[in-house]
Amino acid sequence: MSASVSPLAPKSFAEMPAIRGVSMATAAAGIKYKNRTDVLLMVFDQPASVAGVFTRSKCPSAPVDFCRKNLAHGVARGVVVNSGNANAFTGTKGRAATELTAKSAASALNCGEDEIYLASTGVIGEPLDATKFAGVLDDMARDAKGDFWLEAAKAIMTTDTYPKVATRSTEIGGVTVTINGIAKGAGMIAPDMATMLSFVVTDADIAPAALQALLSAGVGPSFNSVTVDSDTSTSDTLMLFATGAAASDGQQRVETADDARLDGFRAALNDLLKDLALQVVRDGEGARKMVEVTVKGAESDAAAKVIALSIANSPLVKTAVAGEDANWGRVVMAVGKAGELADRDRLAIWFGDVRVAVNGERDPDYSEAAATAVMQGEDIPVTVELGLGSGTATVWTCDLTKEYVAINGDYRS
Amino acid sequence: MSASVSPLAPKSFAEMPAIRGVSMATAAAGIKYKNRTDVLLMVFDQPASVAGVFTRSKCPSAPVDFCRKNLAHGVARGVVVNSGNANAFTGTKGRAATELTAKSAASALNCGEDEIYLASTGVIGEPLDATKFAGVLDDMARDAKGDFWLEAAKAIMTTDTYPKVATRSTEIGGVTVTINGIAKGAGMIAPDMATMLSFVVTDADIAPAALQALLSAGVGPSFNSVTVDSDTSTSDTLMLFATGAAASDGQQRVETADDARLDGFRAALNDLLKDLALQVVRDGEGARKMVEVTVKGAESDAAAKVIALSIANSPLVKTAVAGEDANWGRVVMAVGKAGELADRDRLAIWFGDVRVAVNGERDPDYSEAAATAVMQGEDIPVTVELGLGSGTATVWTCDLTKEYVAINGDYRS
Repeated sequence: MSASVSPLAPKSFAEMPAIRGVSMATAAAGIKYKNRTDVLLMVFDQPASVAGVFTRSKCPSAPVDFCRKNLAHGVARGVVVNSGNANAFTGTKGRAATELTAKSAASALNCGEDEIYLASTGVIGEPLDATKFAGVLDDMARDAKGDFWLEAAKAIMTTDTYPKVATRSTEIGGVTVTINGIAKGAGMIAPDMATMLSFVVTDADIAPAALQALLSAGVGPSFNSVTVDSDTSTSDTLMLFATGAAASDGQQRVETADDARLDGFRAALNDLLKDLALQVVRDGEGARKMVEVTVKGAESDAAAKVIALSIANSPLVKTAVAGEDANWGRVVMAVGKAGELADRDRLAIWFGDVRVAVNGERDPDYSEAAATAVMQGEDIPVTVELGLGSGTATVWTCDLTKEYVAINGDYRS
Repeated sequence: MSASVSPLAPKSFAEMPAIRGVSMATAAAGIKYKNRTDVLLMVFDQPASVAGVFTRSKCPSAPVDFCRKNLAHGVARGVVVNSGNANAFTGTKGRAATELTAKSAASALNCGEDEIYLASTGVIGEPLDATKFAGVLDDMARDAKGDFWLEAAKAIMTTDTYPKVATRSTEIGGVTVTINGIAKGAGMIAPDMATMLSFVVTDADIAPAALQALLSAGVGPSFNSVTVDSDTSTSDTLMLFATGAAASDGQQRVETADDARLDGFRAALNDLLKDLALQVVRDGEGARKMVEVTVKGAESDAAAKVIALSIANSPLVKTAVAGEDANWGRVVMAVGKAGELADRDRLAIWFGDVRVAVNGERDPDYSEAAATAVMQGEDIPVTVELGLGSGTATVWTCDLTKEYVAINGDYRS
């Protein structure tokens, strides 16, 4: 954990209500450090519907493999999350560690191993000693409590400087339901997802297939639109659980994602996912500023996103932001290198409301002072109009600072 | 220009012989700064064969557009290179500036404007005042001399900390010919080519089409295999000129690139291009270490190069190198995010001669001390064996240091 909290941290944390049907506990299992909370157990009283999206890395971690396999089963009774060790690139030892952890958790929760989900974050390539879980999971299962979200968010932090929590409430068929989520960052953050773990739980009663469709659609404009350093982790995991406890209030189970009763839930879920994703960017390693890059007028939404990410991942754009330098020439560079169709002479660029370039050259009314004033803020909106079509995309990133280099040049020691 | 010279700079510069048929001069035209050499004029006594490869940016600079247009003509009489202003994203003003510069140069050299080539490097988006060239080109044409290569290399530097020169000599049909080259870096360096300018001249007599084929083939494993920061410039220009002066020694003109008499020349040219390209990486902004990434056993050479570049461009790999941290887990991450076929459980990784991972997990004989010793050197070889096929690629990069952030966070001021 970093010594100082990101200047972009929220001024206060959301008040997280308990969600009926789920409880949590944390423990210090000594995965990497002594006397440091490093395990989170999430317990569902009854089998909860489950959905998940995972890293697209070709070298995924053992827990990611394990979760993918279990997802077919569709229900969850417990989630075990550890920090300090990613259990990635650990070969057969890694698979054995997931199996042992699942076995310990299933025993503690009196359920099947295929109802357990696992996530690990930390150093890649170190064997994970899963026997350490066995000693703590029984106690955790016994002590788990519902009003524990902020503590849970703290337990999964690695280089994060603040815990990430969000909550929303909405209605399904006239019945109030709640959605809570926690997430961690803070480096190796890129589409598609980075060493980013996030767990979202609702008390709504929604079938697994519908839940998966909602989550798969919701991840695009949220977690898959943030990048800290363009580096995609082996361990990215975003899971959504529905305990179904709202059924006791009369909420009728929803079976398909296109059911109109889910409209409000979908909006609330998407809003919560974006909230958490932006909290991850705002805690990007070494971040001092957040950048919102919007590309309009591209050939397609997909092309717009490629160009937006080219800008957001450019070290030269990100260092210019760090230096409060309205260096829009580097935005031109990043548009040009993206490889998507662009017509230099139709391009226009804004920093905040200040149009700095238009028709392929510097805006005749360009004011360096006005552009610099935008760069001096904490939140830097960059807008690019390509003038070619109607494709749009927005992505979020942070600046690239000396602190990022310091944090990552000395991470393992 | 940076205050301190890269620790990776060559210990001495190559002795650059004169090349018959070409002469050079430099001047201070006041493009951006007063009293600083910022223009290079290269003069060919007779029309020289010309070849060029340029940035693949969709937003190329006006000089790149101008050179591409003139290349069809096939011969060159002069080259004007300036630093301080890239004449990129300058709209119709940019085109007018190239035309005015070419007109001034053609007048000074008494040749056609389509025999002039232009390259500009510096800030993007600032209009270039080409009238400044008019005042100096006549004098430069008069004073140009042949023994001037190191000075020429110095004149085109921007954030480079040392001039980049290389020379080779070889034979064509028993006649000795010489190849000289200069280049500049040092940021916005990525395949395909970056704000990288390089001019190579030989006294060999080779037809334009053959020259272009040699250059197009030679750029792949040299300039297109180096990356400093993954950012591709609007202005990348690599040109090769053949004055044909060796014809006076009896060298018979070579018309096609597949002519066996060019075998030695091709090898010498490729060696020189690689020499210059590595000098560019070794002067990468803030660089303290060079990294040679070799990927073997990929599905294809193209797949190997994508994976090698994913490793070489990863901020987390590059900061680990800066921190002398043998963090091979980040290499796994970069392989995984590349998107090309990879089988985690067949992967092996070496730092230098130290195998750190094999069969999808940490090498059982792994020695942290031995791996760290490799990281403490100036040149860090990283080798990845995918175990899938016979595709290979090697790319070169440098570490990512706080100095890179400092240089680029405050470049324009």
